[in-house]
Amino acid sequence: MATGCRRREVWVEQQWIEWLMSQLGGDARLDVPNGDDAAVLRPSAGRRTLFCTDMLCEGVHFPVAPDYDARAVGHKAIAVNLSDVAAMAGWPEAAVVSVSLPRRGGQQVGEDLLAGMQAIARRFGVPLVGGDTTSWDGPLVVNVAMLGSVAPGRIWRRDGCRAGDVLMVTGALGGSLSGRHLAVEPRLHEAQRIAETVTVNGAIDISDGLLLDLSRMMQASGCGAEVDLAAVPIHPDATAAAAADPAGEPPLNRALGDGEDFELLLNLPADHATRLLETIADGRLAGWPGTPLSVIGRVVAGQGLVALARDGSRTPLPPTGYQHAFD
Amino acid sequence: MATGCRRREVWVEQQWIEWLMSQLGGDARLDVPNGDDAAVLRPSAGRRTLFCTDMLCEGVHFPVAPDYDARAVGHKAIAVNLSDVAAMAGWPEAAVVSVSLPRRGGQQVGEDLLAGMQAIARRFGVPLVGGDTTSWDGPLVVNVAMLGSVAPGRIWRRDGCRAGDVLMVTGALGGSLSGRHLAVEPRLHEAQRIAETVTVNGAIDISDGLLLDLSRMMQASGCGAEVDLAAVPIHPDATAAAAADPAGEPPLNRALGDGEDFELLLNLPADHATRLLETIADGRLAGWPGTPLSVIGRVVAGQGLVALARDGSRTPLPPTGYQHAFD
Repeated sequence: MATGCRRREVWVEQQWIEWLMSQLGGDARLDVPNGDDAAVLRPSAGRRTLFCTDMLCEGVHFPVAPDYDARAVGHKAIAVNLSDVAAMAGWPEAAVVSVSLPRRGGQQVGEDLLAGMQAIARRFGVPLVGGDTTSWDGPLVVNVAMLGSVAPGRIWRRDGCRAGDVLMVTGALGGSLSGRHLAVEPRLHEAQRIAETVTVNGAIDISDGLLLDLSRMMQASGCGAEVDLAAVPIHPDATAAAAADPAGEPPLNRALGDGEDFELLLNLPADHATRLLETIADGRLAGWPGTPLSVIGRVVAGQGLVALARDGSRTPLPPTGYQHAFD
Repeated sequence: MATGCRRREVWVEQQWIEWLMSQLGGDARLDVPNGDDAAVLRPSAGRRTLFCTDMLCEGVHFPVAPDYDARAVGHKAIAVNLSDVAAMAGWPEAAVVSVSLPRRGGQQVGEDLLAGMQAIARRFGVPLVGGDTTSWDGPLVVNVAMLGSVAPGRIWRRDGCRAGDVLMVTGALGGSLSGRHLAVEPRLHEAQRIAETVTVNGAIDISDGLLLDLSRMMQASGCGAEVDLAAVPIHPDATAAAAADPAGEPPLNRALGDGEDFELLLNLPADHATRLLETIADGRLAGWPGTPLSVIGRVVAGQGLVALARDGSRTPLPPTGYQHAFD
């Protein structure tokens, strides 16, 4: 029995769980029906298992009630994990969900959360196979843990970048806070097509900001990077946010440091980068979703980040981005 | 970038993650060093994968600050997942941890949490392979998701109980709120020894209360159960709690409904139950940790729970226990 709780003979949680079970359905990968102490899955033969987790907290990763849309929160909770799986060149296999629901209105929040999670999970064929529900008077917290799988010889690490590699990003960056940070679109299909086509020496998804995540990847790889600032793809959201706040950061700074873009940052040997871009430009990359790919710089010996200007001058770049702080 | 955050150039989260990485070390099952977008594991050949999760919330599953001991919270967060794996007859393989730390004092809380998690995780050989850290002004929330594995032909489900099966429990029940609910001792070794020795038709770990968890297992199996109230093992904590509160529930009621015992409730064919008890009594069950095993009733056709008195009379039993409630 939990601390400070009262003994109850109501079937409230039971009803919730039964409703959940009726929504979840089955999946061919499950050996035992949903609702047991743990989900039982058949591992994909000949593949490695990926395992990751992300927690979303009210007021940090989504707005405080009543300003959050629980469907959007559910979408994001699944999508950020899918993005982690994509950044390893993997494919998602199953998810478990923990949620602390408000005592008041919790049923509606729970139903909306599930609807948002199910919609994106189904798009990528990921069964929700288990979870844990708490009710309390505290904030809404949603945690998703995800299993995926990946071909053993084709795992995208963050510590394999090499001097001379080309830096590329999918999509465009910055201004996610205006709403895109909730409508995360994981780059799973893009990662699969790229991994099938070329060698990728390093990959990370941009969650905390391009420069911060780039610096993390370079640090893990023991390298530095030159960033061609003029080539960084700026999202219209960043331009709009800068226009709405002329005293604030210019669009480029937002693209460099806002974070929550959930685009892929990749390092490829230069010839592979060229081949990839040509293959896409020629329309020969079957199944490519049409997502833009931009070359934004290159990996160099040494450490730290520098901005490369069009005139060839180099300026040190601070690794801006979002970090959780405590003392 | 998260909602409402400020751009930071401090390395606070980075330092925390680097410290974490230095503490975690490696593991032979890991294909890629800790700290990437997802952990990469080699699945155990010929086994099924178990996947479960549990979330602990300040003021619900452990006391409100400053009354919680973060080491004990860390222990419990891992232990309750280990208990779920035990209830499937599995063995744990890896864990990922999400935590929302207070901005004030969060570093100490984080270090103590990790110490508590590591101590029990190491006892059972479970590497912590990833996670997610948030800092906020909200309550401490700790989520653990765990992977385990189990032999395909020996999975303990909760829906396989059959009329005539014997009900058994490990250990003793009730009064966990006096402190034992934090010092959870997962019955992993017990489950392994039992699974190697006899057939178990149904199993669940007692988290929400003996009668509530029993009723769930019976409902999943389409059966009812008779409980021999005189045979239910009452923990000294339940007796002490009742003595300290003479107007409150008697010890037996606490054993039946308090929950957070994290003992195993098992259903075995009668002859297997007899053989198991004899094997243990004779000292022939190698590796048995000495945990008491009690027969507390049997599975019957029909549905619902009844109390079986010594004079043979039967009384309906409400499925008392703890449920999270919301509206």
